[in-house]
Amino acid sequence: MTDPSNINAGVARLPAASRQLRLGIVGGGGGGFIGPVHAIAARMDNRYRLVAGALSSRPDIARAAGAEWFLPADRSYTDYRDMARAEAARPDGAEVVAITTPNHSHHAIARAFLDQGIHVICDKPMTTQLADALDLRQKVTETGLGFYVTHGFAAYPMVRQARAMVAAGKLGRIGAMHVEFMGDWLTPSPDEGAMPPAGWRTDPALSGPGGAIADIGTHAFHLARFVSGQEVSGLLAQLSRAHPARRLDDNAHLLLRFEGGATGSLLASQVSPGNDCELRFRIYGDRGGLEWSQADANHLWFTETGQETRRIARGGTGTMPAAQHMTRVPRGHPEGYLEAFANLYSEVALDLIARIDGIRSDTECLAAAIADGVLGVAFVEAAVASDRLGNIWQDPRALI
Amino acid sequence: MTDPSNINAGVARLPAASRQLRLGIVGGGGGGFIGPVHAIAARMDNRYRLVAGALSSRPDIARAAGAEWFLPADRSYTDYRDMARAEAARPDGAEVVAITTPNHSHHAIARAFLDQGIHVICDKPMTTQLADALDLRQKVTETGLGFYVTHGFAAYPMVRQARAMVAAGKLGRIGAMHVEFMGDWLTPSPDEGAMPPAGWRTDPALSGPGGAIADIGTHAFHLARFVSGQEVSGLLAQLSRAHPARRLDDNAHLLLRFEGGATGSLLASQVSPGNDCELRFRIYGDRGGLEWSQADANHLWFTETGQETRRIARGGTGTMPAAQHMTRVPRGHPEGYLEAFANLYSEVALDLIARIDGIRSDTECLAAAIADGVLGVAFVEAAVASDRLGNIWQDPRALI
Amino acid sequence: MTDPSNINAGVARLPAASRQLRLGIVGGGGGGFIGPVHAIAARMDNRYRLVAGALSSRPDIARAAGAEWFLPADRSYTDYRDMARAEAARPDGAEVVAITTPNHSHHAIARAFLDQGIHVICDKPMTTQLADALDLRQKVTETGLGFYVTHGFAAYPMVRQARAMVAAGKLGRIGAMHVEFMGDWLTPSPDEGAMPPAGWRTDPALSGPGGAIADIGTHAFHLARFVSGQEVSGLLAQLSRAHPARRLDDNAHLLLRFEGGATGSLLASQVSPGNDCELRFRIYGDRGGLEWSQADANHLWFTETGQETRRIARGGTGTMPAAQHMTRVPRGHPEGYLEAFANLYSEVALDLIARIDGIRSDTECLAAAIADGVLGVAFVEAAVASDRLGNIWQDPRALI
Amino acid sequence: MTDPSNINAGVARLPAASRQLRLGIVGGGGGGFIGPVHAIAARMDNRYRLVAGALSSRPDIARAAGAEWFLPADRSYTDYRDMARAEAARPDGAEVVAITTPNHSHHAIARAFLDQGIHVICDKPMTTQLADALDLRQKVTETGLGFYVTHGFAAYPMVRQARAMVAAGKLGRIGAMHVEFMGDWLTPSPDEGAMPPAGWRTDPALSGPGGAIADIGTHAFHLARFVSGQEVSGLLAQLSRAHPARRLDDNAHLLLRFEGGATGSLLASQVSPGNDCELRFRIYGDRGGLEWSQADANHLWFTETGQETRRIARGGTGTMPAAQHMTRVPRGHPEGYLEAFANLYSEVALDLIARIDGIRSDTECLAAAIADGVLGVAFVEAAVASDRLGNIWQDPRALI
Repeated sequence: MTDPSNINAGVARLPAASRQLRLGIVGGGGGGFIGPVHAIAARMDNRYRLVAGALSSRPDIARAAGAEWFLPADRSYTDYRDMARAEAARPDGAEVVAITTPNHSHHAIARAFLDQGIHVICDKPMTTQLADALDLRQKVTETGLGFYVTHGFAAYPMVRQARAMVAAGKLGRIGAMHVEFMGDWLTPSPDEGAMPPAGWRTDPALSGPGGAIADIGTHAFHLARFVSGQEVSGLLAQLSRAHPARRLDDNAHLLLRFEGGATGSLLASQVSPGNDCELRFRIYGDRGGLEWSQADANHLWFTETGQETRRIARGGTGTMPAAQHMTRVPRGHPEGYLEAFANLYSEVALDLIARIDGIRSDTECLAAAIADGVLGVAFVEAAVASDRLGNIWQDPRALI
Repeated sequence: MTDPSNINAGVARLPAASRQLRLGIVGGGGGGFIGPVHAIAARMDNRYRLVAGALSSRPDIARAAGAEWFLPADRSYTDYRDMARAEAARPDGAEVVAITTPNHSHHAIARAFLDQGIHVICDKPMTTQLADALDLRQKVTETGLGFYVTHGFAAYPMVRQARAMVAAGKLGRIGAMHVEFMGDWLTPSPDEGAMPPAGWRTDPALSGPGGAIADIGTHAFHLARFVSGQEVSGLLAQLSRAHPARRLDDNAHLLLRFEGGATGSLLASQVSPGNDCELRFRIYGDRGGLEWSQADANHLWFTETGQETRRIARGGTGTMPAAQHMTRVPRGHPEGYLEAFANLYSEVALDLIARIDGIRSDTECLAAAIADGVLGVAFVEAAVASDRLGNIWQDPRALI
Repeated sequence: MTDPSNINAGVARLPAASRQLRLGIVGGGGGGFIGPVHAIAARMDNRYRLVAGALSSRPDIARAAGAEWFLPADRSYTDYRDMARAEAARPDGAEVVAITTPNHSHHAIARAFLDQGIHVICDKPMTTQLADALDLRQKVTETGLGFYVTHGFAAYPMVRQARAMVAAGKLGRIGAMHVEFMGDWLTPSPDEGAMPPAGWRTDPALSGPGGAIADIGTHAFHLARFVSGQEVSGLLAQLSRAHPARRLDDNAHLLLRFEGGATGSLLASQVSPGNDCELRFRIYGDRGGLEWSQADANHLWFTETGQETRRIARGGTGTMPAAQHMTRVPRGHPEGYLEAFANLYSEVALDLIARIDGIRSDTECLAAAIADGVLGVAFVEAAVASDRLGNIWQDPRALI
Repeated sequence: MTDPSNINAGVARLPAASRQLRLGIVGGGGGGFIGPVHAIAARMDNRYRLVAGALSSRPDIARAAGAEWFLPADRSYTDYRDMARAEAARPDGAEVVAITTPNHSHHAIARAFLDQGIHVICDKPMTTQLADALDLRQKVTETGLGFYVTHGFAAYPMVRQARAMVAAGKLGRIGAMHVEFMGDWLTPSPDEGAMPPAGWRTDPALSGPGGAIADIGTHAFHLARFVSGQEVSGLLAQLSRAHPARRLDDNAHLLLRFEGGATGSLLASQVSPGNDCELRFRIYGDRGGLEWSQADANHLWFTETGQETRRIARGGTGTMPAAQHMTRVPRGHPEGYLEAFANLYSEVALDLIARIDGIRSDTECLAAAIADGVLGVAFVEAAVASDRLGNIWQDPRALI
């Protein structure tokens, strides 16, 4: 145990919840990765209680997963529409549902729950077509329901620290921002004649028009805007595929322009051997620069122009409240991806309880805005259009 | 979302639980660091339900914390003895209690719960005196109750990977092992005339005879044995203090001998500026070497003699089942300290359910053995004796 | 001392020279950085003897520098034309001259020496205008003289290793290459009303039409081609300036296309705080990927698709002859920038002695080809044109 | 080229030499590693001219190496005694000789040159027996000749920076210092029945009583004293061998005490797979801490107590004159082992010219003092004695 008072100096958790939210979940039973991530994230800070689920559309899997997750048998559904109706009808029904299924199903599922008055937490990209995202946005506007898109990387403490430092002017006028999300999990084998199936991610019918640009590029795009505090006013994309038989891009290389005059680049790749979900950003102004990488998530590297580079540690000296509120354990003990996702879930909980119970919250829900979800879908379409039209500038905002 | 089938290849969670355990907790309400860590760890994998707590001996704090943790008001106690009696008397009472208070209170609290037939999870060091640890061990032997000491670092996936590789002979005959736990949170200000209070950690009455050697040295000692698979047959300690007014060691430098013939070193420091809980080990044999650091917890660096150094990533190629069972999310998305602690809690749950329900478990509870807790206390006493007697060799096992 | 036979396994210096070359130098006396670099590089492997210099056009500086460099007084010139004539007239005159002056003077100086039959080693960019580069190329073709452009980074051992691995097919079919050269030495102060002079580098009259794109972008461009073994068939550039008063680009962000079908990106920046000449490349194929950074110049990071990432150490296991020939000291003892530059000088020496003395050399002079120098100037012009014409694709080869 | 005035701010070379020294060398022709290192180091800054050598005792090797090094045939000797006599008799004879042969021969060779009035630069350890070192010291005292022992690591710029910061009080009162030199080049194969020969390094007759402790431990010991500015007042050593058939230690683990009250540790190993000459130190005081590693030689990591860790770059902000005088190229372009060795040679040159020519030098020759060479031999003997006597404290100074 290691808890002298000073070592907790950089730890300032979010406000306690007045109560727990009743959460339902769709997807997650079939061995995919993101369903359990949502469940752990919801559980970590004790702000949710999982009460219902449609964990799989296959009855046997749904049943087994429901038992494993300790769902009551009668609230472990196989059809999300049944779930939406039944939970809406219960006085103790799910207040909010987390959608963790493949992209193409997000719209229908979200719509089913919104139609029943149930708030939604939706994985990204929000939908595979912009029209669907706009439809959900309109429904949300009409109903006043909460709709949250999980750009979970934006809830890493040191990402918040970066955003806060930029907003506070520590970097001066921003000149350039570079962001990238590099993976290798779709690297084709050189021996395969035709590409093997790589799950729904390489199928346009299930993933939408974007491959890497949608799957991970949207995260990079969100981070670029989130950290810089500036909208991307232009993008110029070159999309490519590592294998001719692949139907969606697996390499996306973009030039960026920001509304404040900065320029930059965005790389997204699923075919870069040696990269394990390497998400990074670099942002430079005339007063200083910042660099961050998920692989070293607990540190932010800050250089004031003309000074030595400094390593700001999560929980340590130099952290600002924006980061401290995302911090659970003292500096040195690493927090990771699940903690970031849980931070997002905690912010959603505070926002949602305030909304449902009609109370005021001082905590902004920064990383889950529906507007960012909609813009993420527009980003994919703008990038695909830029590439198709011969690598010309597109403004993703113009599509909305 | 990023879940093509191959990316989950290195993820193989522990067996699902047949039921949840009813958990009580002592300590954790007063703003310390380790109480919430236990609570999150218990919650993460959904294997425990927190049903009762003595979160503080101060009624106001206990009440506020109990509300924040959503404990029923009548099961939020201010006296652990009341809690032990009351919970033992309930048919739905806590089956197991987590003790997260300062070291000097571990023995009395643990004894109170064991006396009521309640299993115990205890933070380390297990007690401040060896006699107390032996008393608990005897009680446990007599009653057949479970007693688990939380050497949580040993549940990091890549620590398990290291242990499994050593056991599989990947390193050959072990020649040397170096382990260290370096911090800076007690670095004295050069301006202070006398030392300020640094909490109970620098008070022998509350911490026992060891400072850094007990607070963090025990973790390093546990790792040395855990990873090498060998007992430490000798230690020679030099303990020192950064400030004459300090009453316990804050720097501990030890030479080690292992029963298999290897030699090594152990460093523990609370006064090394720039170190944020830097826990590391290095182990070398005639077939290869391994290096690991908590600061880069998701990688293990492996060198086969004469080959390039390889970076084994948690969840990636080269991982063995021992690591995969400790893994929740694919390679690249970092897991951290809380996940390691949750791994330990999950292993304890499997062990305890098997014990309580009389069923067989194939999962060994590796990182929480009471024998390791007892030996950790003996280690502190042996190190203090070695230093006091002029830096001579001591065998910690000889004290038990 | 550390020299058991095995530790030298990865050290295989270039063939010994049959004699030393007589070297002259132009520039270097005025406190600039690159002049002494050439001098040290020439001296390191004992293949040159400095016999003459025009170290500065200012007589006092030329005299002082000549004395400091131990030049005979009568061979320390102030006018490079005098030097060219005088040295050509001596039987023991300089055989080759190193030009280390600012860019705009390269053409005239090089021409003066070529006209006198003296071989030339020229810093990059070769000239500030493509016409001048083509003029020199024609002169060289006519005379058969040697002309070497110092792309020194391409003589780092681990850059050679990367090139050799790509050529040997270790990466399979190349899909993407990213290269960058990031600095911060021209970051403007936020307080300055108008930009201060930053030497000749920000003056188009002295530097030519490119700023960062010429000063450092040419190095990145050379590396992209050198390592991939492929020509860049298209580039699309976005050039920008951190301050409106600056007259040349200080940020250059490019998309690339390679003739073999790969895509990629190139970043060059002089205004990215925290970057100290950070030159990096990443190259990915379907069999594997490689990453290298000047900041960790002695290691190359190699991932075979589906395998653990491996760290290949200069001088260590896994190195190929191409790297071993660039290696002087065993693995672990770092070699740096000057050693790389000296490697280039050694290759030039072997090539030049073969040329002058009419003997055959088995050593290719890889990093100093005049064709690469010419293409580097075309690259700058193509990038400037791409940006000016609205960020459209340009083929630098089409300009030649 | 990258040389705006500001980027050279951290570059401040040593004073220019008034003339070149005439250097002879003994050893270096036989393919060993350290001979060429001395030659390059002498050449790099143009302060020496190699005029004579006894590059090997085998005539064919000596002749071939002499030709390759461009020695006049009549000054390429096969017997160092002949060389000493002949060079002493020439008006243009070698003024100073570099001894780069195996340890056991240092004494006789050094003595031969001192007897002829020729100054000596000697690799470390100075001798294999303390009596021999003391003999040389006495001879030097009597004759007033220069005798320099090449502790080259102490001439790394960032090692100088560390020393200067400690001396300036930036770390406050020093509490602990840890130093280590870890290699793997003698790791035995697990398959070999008896140990193979590993050159003269594992033969007590040629290496003296110490293995790793002498070969590399002396470097670590020198650094500990050099950086801390404190004498080691006590050491307690545990020496071991990775294989029973080995006759000298290959693992040395020591506890240290410093005269100022600090404690620490020293590790030296030749059998730690994955370590390529990893030389590191860490030093901690009550005002701050410093960490340095040869693998990242161009950076020094500085933490003021309670502040963020800062990365001080060679040639960059925060460097002190002591480091700047050891710096040739701007920050970002790495300098390495050969540059450090050349720094030492440059300091020796300044010192020696001042001595020979009777002029005053403001440059202290910090890293090559004979006193440090003698103490290094005493260190080996003290460590061996400590181990043999049962790991008891020894003061190396007491042996002299």
